[in-house]
Amino acid sequence: MNAWGMGIASTVNAPPALSGSGRGKKVAVLGAGLAGMTAAYELSKLGYQVEVLEARPFAGGRCQTARKGFALQELGGEAQTCRFDEGQYINHGPWRIPLDHQSTLYYTRQFDVPLEVMVNENDHAWVYMEDAGPFSKRRLRPEQVKADMRGHVAELLAKSVQDKLLDTRLNPDDQRLLLDYLAHEGALNAKDLAYKGRNGRGWAVNPGAGLRPGTASDPLAFRDLLSSKVGKVYSAVQEFPMHTTMFQPVGGMDRIAQGFASRLGGKIRYGQEVQRIRQTPDGVTVALKDVASGKLSSVSADYVLCAIPLSVLRTIDTDFSERFKGAMKAVSYAPVGKIGLQMKRRFWEEDDQIYGGHVLTDIKGINTISLPSSGWQSRKGVVLGYYHYALDAIEASALSPAERAEFAVSAGERIFPQYRDAYENAFSVAWHRVQYNLGGWAEWDEAGRKNAYPVLLEGEGRVLLAGEHLSYLTGWQAGAIESAWQQIEQLHKRASA
Amino acid sequence: MNAWGMGIASTVNAPPALSGSGRGKKVAVLGAGLAGMTAAYELSKLGYQVEVLEARPFAGGRCQTARKGFALQELGGEAQTCRFDEGQYINHGPWRIPLDHQSTLYYTRQFDVPLEVMVNENDHAWVYMEDAGPFSKRRLRPEQVKADMRGHVAELLAKSVQDKLLDTRLNPDDQRLLLDYLAHEGALNAKDLAYKGRNGRGWAVNPGAGLRPGTASDPLAFRDLLSSKVGKVYSAVQEFPMHTTMFQPVGGMDRIAQGFASRLGGKIRYGQEVQRIRQTPDGVTVALKDVASGKLSSVSADYVLCAIPLSVLRTIDTDFSERFKGAMKAVSYAPVGKIGLQMKRRFWEEDDQIYGGHVLTDIKGINTISLPSSGWQSRKGVVLGYYHYALDAIEASALSPAERAEFAVSAGERIFPQYRDAYENAFSVAWHRVQYNLGGWAEWDEAGRKNAYPVLLEGEGRVLLAGEHLSYLTGWQAGAIESAWQQIEQLHKRASA
Repeated sequence: MNAWGMGIASTVNAPPALSGSGRGKKVAVLGAGLAGMTAAYELSKLGYQVEVLEARPFAGGRCQTARKGFALQELGGEAQTCRFDEGQYINHGPWRIPLDHQSTLYYTRQFDVPLEVMVNENDHAWVYMEDAGPFSKRRLRPEQVKADMRGHVAELLAKSVQDKLLDTRLNPDDQRLLLDYLAHEGALNAKDLAYKGRNGRGWAVNPGAGLRPGTASDPLAFRDLLSSKVGKVYSAVQEFPMHTTMFQPVGGMDRIAQGFASRLGGKIRYGQEVQRIRQTPDGVTVALKDVASGKLSSVSADYVLCAIPLSVLRTIDTDFSERFKGAMKAVSYAPVGKIGLQMKRRFWEEDDQIYGGHVLTDIKGINTISLPSSGWQSRKGVVLGYYHYALDAIEASALSPAERAEFAVSAGERIFPQYRDAYENAFSVAWHRVQYNLGGWAEWDEAGRKNAYPVLLEGEGRVLLAGEHLSYLTGWQAGAIESAWQQIEQLHKRASA
Repeated sequence: MNAWGMGIASTVNAPPALSGSGRGKKVAVLGAGLAGMTAAYELSKLGYQVEVLEARPFAGGRCQTARKGFALQELGGEAQTCRFDEGQYINHGPWRIPLDHQSTLYYTRQFDVPLEVMVNENDHAWVYMEDAGPFSKRRLRPEQVKADMRGHVAELLAKSVQDKLLDTRLNPDDQRLLLDYLAHEGALNAKDLAYKGRNGRGWAVNPGAGLRPGTASDPLAFRDLLSSKVGKVYSAVQEFPMHTTMFQPVGGMDRIAQGFASRLGGKIRYGQEVQRIRQTPDGVTVALKDVASGKLSSVSADYVLCAIPLSVLRTIDTDFSERFKGAMKAVSYAPVGKIGLQMKRRFWEEDDQIYGGHVLTDIKGINTISLPSSGWQSRKGVVLGYYHYALDAIEASALSPAERAEFAVSAGERIFPQYRDAYENAFSVAWHRVQYNLGGWAEWDEAGRKNAYPVLLEGEGRVLLAGEHLSYLTGWQAGAIESAWQQIEQLHKRASA
């Protein structure tokens, strides 16, 4: 089938089929994020006795959804409690499930988590650049830019072929075929190979009833497009794994976490902060502190599957070798910030006919404004007001929640004049300031991948690690899940030996 | 705002704001399709006494959804009763609501018809051509073709610029900007401007956890792509009105019809076939036959808003002028066929990771196989097995329902080997053989638009016409709705004069 499909990838799409049994063996799983819960769920099915230790009062790790009442206090920050209306939410952690992530989709199917399309590419949304030459501070739609860039480029190449400038490069047959393609791709005029616009860029007046045949719109000038560089804001094809069809769970991403948590039930102990990890040739002991009471306790197990982010794990007292500890330090964690802004009116739909997708902008610290892919045509909606990384994220995270909201609103209103008036309240997160995460996701550099990554993949003795950080899908739920699949196979091999 | 948006179209997105009242005046509306019901609904609000006469036992016209128990007997054909499982359906009439059709979206919002995304562009679906040179009978994904065509073309043009072949056409600044754009658009290698593939075309092996960084896939050869002509199966941008975001009502398109019908309630009389239309200077009389009993009756009104398709209206006895009757004959109606195939397993999702969208093919009589945009990851699904027009539709419509299903299945299994095994049952329609439609939609030619169309728009005396046929959005629900809006404005002006 793959050969027939001409080199299309297969992907890991189910847990490893493991033989034998884990009966009589205990595994302590540290962290009830998706990696930890995947490991716990699958190991349980194999017969292992599993205990999941989670510091937070809820499961999911970064797989969180903020809705009315959701509380967050960043390290050294003000307490925030989400004040969205009932039914409104923001996925402030992972928010997309790509079709390529069959591992994540394996569990949404197993757990009957209903999915809906997340509009991840919307050529009808705005592109708004403040530094784009002739188009600075103008609102464009990607469909205009794509149509016109491809039209003008096709015209340039077609006319060059016609004028025999490419005779040394292409034989007459290929020239004819290329012209045929370019005329199609660029919607060129058959007679003179000129690009004069196309309705895919939008009409000046839409066709309608009666005497309303529609009025064509004029293309943007080639030279203006080139000097604006807006042809670089989109991709010729969506890169992996961003392509259609993108999904989100109906009602919030944490439905996936709940799917695992409800099946693991009493196997998860909440509010248990890992203080120390010690191992002997026969087992591992994990010292815990009850977050609420401060009470200390410990758990012993034959194996530990540690799904704590390395950013946190490296702050915990362990007896890992120096080599292993060094490897744990070799990766940096991404500063990442998001803000959800509840709007009392879906002006992007009502006024601008934009239904989901991302508004791309060069406004500093914003990156994208993303519009909700649920609640179509309803009254209110929660907009993702920024999604930023690196220095932008660090700068914004120094602001108070109210200041972040003001930052987002004052940027957004440059694109949408309705923004400030519609704004009601906000919920923001700076993942690098969240206690049990200390970062959005692992960011490996080349040296780290080469030297530290393989060390961590091996685990140490009876402790194995799992998480998005031990995958090439860092920052994705699929990375966490597939890492768990990979590591439990190893654990089971070790335990069965 | 439009100027700011650089020439983006505004569109008709609400019924005309009419002043005055229709109180004391009666309008007989012929046909409870979307045009008729829109007119009736809006005229009622203005105070008109409205009576809608519908030949079928249900409202909606072509806005139909086939689900378990839905019955259809084409003229001279076998009776079909839909045998899909509970919850399965096919929109065998209109099936898409484009964002540009704000008129349709006006009513889904008014009537609280919940919408979901209809995946109308899916570059991960198959393209399967039997006559495509080196790619004949191979399955490709549009993302591969787009990535590779654009990559190779960008490389060709970039190298031509670099080798100074285009010096007479572009100044050095523009050359530099163009190279920068082409390197981005084509994902060209920075060093030698070569296209060597990109992950947007798919990986040979997807990245994953552990030691699985992903293996890149090789591009298709430029010459093979050119000679296959597969670069012409997609568009550089989706043409109007096909672009993202496309919608469908949750549960079936007939939710829109039901939205109107439930609000019109007793104003609709079902099973009333129009036999004759006669008018005097003071009113119009419509002779009716009760379809069930054969009983004759008549309705008199001050005005008639006739929303019967012209294909049917021209077979009815009227006292319209010869000029008007001539105009009614000047348009042809599209032969259109669709078939829904219930599959016991969603193999396109499970095996091929295709979630919604259209499989494009040159298999004669098929055109597209479209995959459902609802019930993601559930067990069964209804596939649109063909959607054909013109001669293909005429030929297939001569087949019995069972023969049509066999035709569709034997074509589909050339693309999907799982097809026949998964197939359970079918429901098909040939709209040109449906009694009260006699065609899919109006197809105007240039002469008809020029000569006949304006005549029909004027109506005749106290009879005004409405329907998709009196719009430039033929075949779309928005055409019907906007035509009704346009015609009730005229009717109200006449009635108020």
